[in-house]
Amino acid sequence: MADDRLVIAGREFGSRLIMGTGGAPSLEVLEQALRISGTELTTVAMRRVNPAARGSVLEVLQRNGIDVLPNTAGCFTAGEAVLTARLAREALGTDWVKLEVVADERTLLPDPVELLDAAETLVDDGFTVLPYTNDDPVLARKLEDVGCAAVMPLGSPIGSGLGIRNPHNFQLIVEQAGVPVILDAGAGTASDAALAMELGCAAVMLATAVTRAQEPALMAEAMRKAVEAGRLAHRAGRIPRRFHAEASSPMSGRAQFDPEAPAF
Amino acid sequence: MADDRLVIAGREFGSRLIMGTGGAPSLEVLEQALRISGTELTTVAMRRVNPAARGSVLEVLQRNGIDVLPNTAGCFTAGEAVLTARLAREALGTDWVKLEVVADERTLLPDPVELLDAAETLVDDGFTVLPYTNDDPVLARKLEDVGCAAVMPLGSPIGSGLGIRNPHNFQLIVEQAGVPVILDAGAGTASDAALAMELGCAAVMLATAVTRAQEPALMAEAMRKAVEAGRLAHRAGRIPRRFHAEASSPMSGRAQFDPEAPAF
Amino acid sequence: MADDRLVIAGREFGSRLIMGTGGAPSLEVLEQALRISGTELTTVAMRRVNPAARGSVLEVLQRNGIDVLPNTAGCFTAGEAVLTARLAREALGTDWVKLEVVADERTLLPDPVELLDAAETLVDDGFTVLPYTNDDPVLARKLEDVGCAAVMPLGSPIGSGLGIRNPHNFQLIVEQAGVPVILDAGAGTASDAALAMELGCAAVMLATAVTRAQEPALMAEAMRKAVEAGRLAHRAGRIPRRFHAEASSPMSGRAQFDPEAPAF
Amino acid sequence: MADDRLVIAGREFGSRLIMGTGGAPSLEVLEQALRISGTELTTVAMRRVNPAARGSVLEVLQRNGIDVLPNTAGCFTAGEAVLTARLAREALGTDWVKLEVVADERTLLPDPVELLDAAETLVDDGFTVLPYTNDDPVLARKLEDVGCAAVMPLGSPIGSGLGIRNPHNFQLIVEQAGVPVILDAGAGTASDAALAMELGCAAVMLATAVTRAQEPALMAEAMRKAVEAGRLAHRAGRIPRRFHAEASSPMSGRAQFDPEAPAF
Repeated sequence: MADDRLVIAGREFGSRLIMGTGGAPSLEVLEQALRISGTELTTVAMRRVNPAARGSVLEVLQRNGIDVLPNTAGCFTAGEAVLTARLAREALGTDWVKLEVVADERTLLPDPVELLDAAETLVDDGFTVLPYTNDDPVLARKLEDVGCAAVMPLGSPIGSGLGIRNPHNFQLIVEQAGVPVILDAGAGTASDAALAMELGCAAVMLATAVTRAQEPALMAEAMRKAVEAGRLAHRAGRIPRRFHAEASSPMSGRAQFDPEAPAF
Repeated sequence: MADDRLVIAGREFGSRLIMGTGGAPSLEVLEQALRISGTELTTVAMRRVNPAARGSVLEVLQRNGIDVLPNTAGCFTAGEAVLTARLAREALGTDWVKLEVVADERTLLPDPVELLDAAETLVDDGFTVLPYTNDDPVLARKLEDVGCAAVMPLGSPIGSGLGIRNPHNFQLIVEQAGVPVILDAGAGTASDAALAMELGCAAVMLATAVTRAQEPALMAEAMRKAVEAGRLAHRAGRIPRRFHAEASSPMSGRAQFDPEAPAF
Repeated sequence: MADDRLVIAGREFGSRLIMGTGGAPSLEVLEQALRISGTELTTVAMRRVNPAARGSVLEVLQRNGIDVLPNTAGCFTAGEAVLTARLAREALGTDWVKLEVVADERTLLPDPVELLDAAETLVDDGFTVLPYTNDDPVLARKLEDVGCAAVMPLGSPIGSGLGIRNPHNFQLIVEQAGVPVILDAGAGTASDAALAMELGCAAVMLATAVTRAQEPALMAEAMRKAVEAGRLAHRAGRIPRRFHAEASSPMSGRAQFDPEAPAF
Repeated sequence: MADDRLVIAGREFGSRLIMGTGGAPSLEVLEQALRISGTELTTVAMRRVNPAARGSVLEVLQRNGIDVLPNTAGCFTAGEAVLTARLAREALGTDWVKLEVVADERTLLPDPVELLDAAETLVDDGFTVLPYTNDDPVLARKLEDVGCAAVMPLGSPIGSGLGIRNPHNFQLIVEQAGVPVILDAGAGTASDAALAMELGCAAVMLATAVTRAQEPALMAEAMRKAVEAGRLAHRAGRIPRRFHAEASSPMSGRAQFDPEAPAF
């Protein structure tokens, strides 16, 4: 597996699980979950963080060697998102940004127009932009066309745990994409993460599925293994689906069983 | 995880993946896949095996420390299955049997009447019986009632790769079962195996999903991790499914981002 | 459509919707729903009916020209069901019986062993037997083999409203059946009924989906039309499913639009 | 049903099935299908029509009293679509337009940015705009906000026959919409149309599901009934989905069956 690394904008990662930090009951629980998950890249909501605060999530990431990926959660317009990204760059010294521009607080769904506008501006401004988008193949292509380094379609609404509602759209997005496709939002359990990888996603992003599980540490391990399992299955080339059964060996010409033979 | 072992009829297993041996292109490929899968229990079709033959699948299992679980594949009546089980016990020195009594060669679906009849006979005869059954909760309970050590419902027809067609029936079977429920037949890829475990299965049995994948070794590793992931997720207690989005942190009362703060 | 009649055991019906009578809030509501549904055959639970009672459901059926199909609801053994069928024949003067032998009160799922036993006995006794069965293709074939006039697989548990949980099994049952396949149990709304017919069912049986809907009369009409729609769609031969889009007309060679042309 | 009419922009329709004209093997077949479908509103691709031509689809609509709804199929930019709509208005004397702005010929998916731009322009220009959109609830709301008279989300790509890939999104769109939501694209068979209506759609738009069925006349009738059935079911208020079975009558306290009673 050493040669199967995730590459985004030329940067390599050994783990294909990107974690978020929201929803954890405590910093201790969060730290344990992050460690177990094996993640190497974790989002932090800039609008909820004071980089100077002691005992902050940033310290947790730093001491565990996890790269921080600032996001623009809580932004409703391109302008807000661009401003937030710039503040994050200044404060955190990274020009990577997970771009979120949501339409409203109730659905937390991306605003396609504002998102595309912000993405274009930030790319022009030298950012490495990873946009949280809906599962529309056309918008995914537009985001790639303006220079985004990945596209991060939602499987279902943030925090819903409904998994990938429309696998068909994920297949359409993956087959046309020239950048990594990363499931963002919707994964509720391990099989959701595995399915995303089998559909051709390059990575999975999730937060509350782990942080709000009854046992976050167990779910962090589950998600790590599920992402690896799904990636391996994708590479392995699965058997075709068949309408009818197929015996694993021909039923005719069965060798005779010899009851006289000694047991091995 | 050391304390989360699979227990069937008082016997413990560290792996929850039970492999079959059918469908492999060669013994070498099979051996590699079995090793990588981590399986500790593997079925062998008695009607296709000569225990005395050198270079046989039995030798492969023996030198890898994998227990053999003889099955009665190819039997269409209770009588045939009982006879085959007895011959296997004599030849292989085990009273465990994976009981298969199929209705016809085309569907390879279990014959519920013959299956129940054979199960009862074999239990009375001192066997530890693991029956391959359909996904009918009533038949599963009857099999448990006559003394089977586990029930092994199919997700979909053998070799179809269609996954678990009726998760609802699996939930009904699991909630009433006092013995381990093991997915048998239908798994095509990693997410199928993970889902089975999330639904409460104690283990997953599969063969062609691995042996006939384009890269059996990769799929063996995928399945090992998927089973582990699904088990962990089941134990972790997943987040509930919600119709609407839910932010990982309250959107109101967001802390102010301070651009003057030094980067950590 | 005059030539597309449902035929069971040589008897013809213009409607492919078979109704049950359970669950209605009143006889008046039931009568209205039955009329609107257009049903020509309706089940009555013999264990809940006194054929001599005035104002009974039997009177409702009689005055609306609907044939009565006694069922053996509430029977848990073959013996009970056979006795109930014989009493029904004597009381109602019909040798048709909808055979139900359930395993327990909680799941109301059919007991496959008792069901098959009862079916064989009743066929030998001259009954026209329509058995309520699970969705196992093997049991469906066995029921046909012992002489049942139709097979009535469940889509999901009685009263659950979960629709057809396993369409694949219905396809397997239909492709092998020489008698009518009738969806029994599980339909919750119109699209469930339409889907059953599209899968090749000859008819749909339901009760509570109508009698316990908020507006039984509206749902009765919905179900009548849904069954007709599904049957027509099945006969019409649907378009194939395609992974990609397909324009309804070639995109190239589009005729020029002439803005000078007069409006028609 | 007389009081359950479809209302779009103040105009009433007795039928909730909107037909397209593409894909028919001949004008004769199309005319028969349109008649049987009961449609009162039918789209015509302006770029494929010469309104002055004799024997045209426009004549078919005219002599059957079906209103024409020009569409902008084949347009890839807002500018093209606006121009086409204006030409249609001039030629056909209607300011209604089904607005289509697709991103490319391969997917035929809507371009969200160009679509919104064109919608705004046309509304400002006095058109009654019915936009073909993806199933994104945010874009649906934006289209309503700029003044569209309805929103027409796709169930799946045009001509794919894959039905409604993401019912959850349809529920989200319907619950927030103040204008009629009309399924556009993806319906392949009757149950797809019924499901759309059950999810709360006000109407269903389709073309090739009928025109390219093996028997277009039968499928036209199927779709007419399916739309009516789904609408009735939506109004009727379906039974809730239950995980477990529920008997249609209490199993306890069953009335005794009296074999002495005379048959009715």
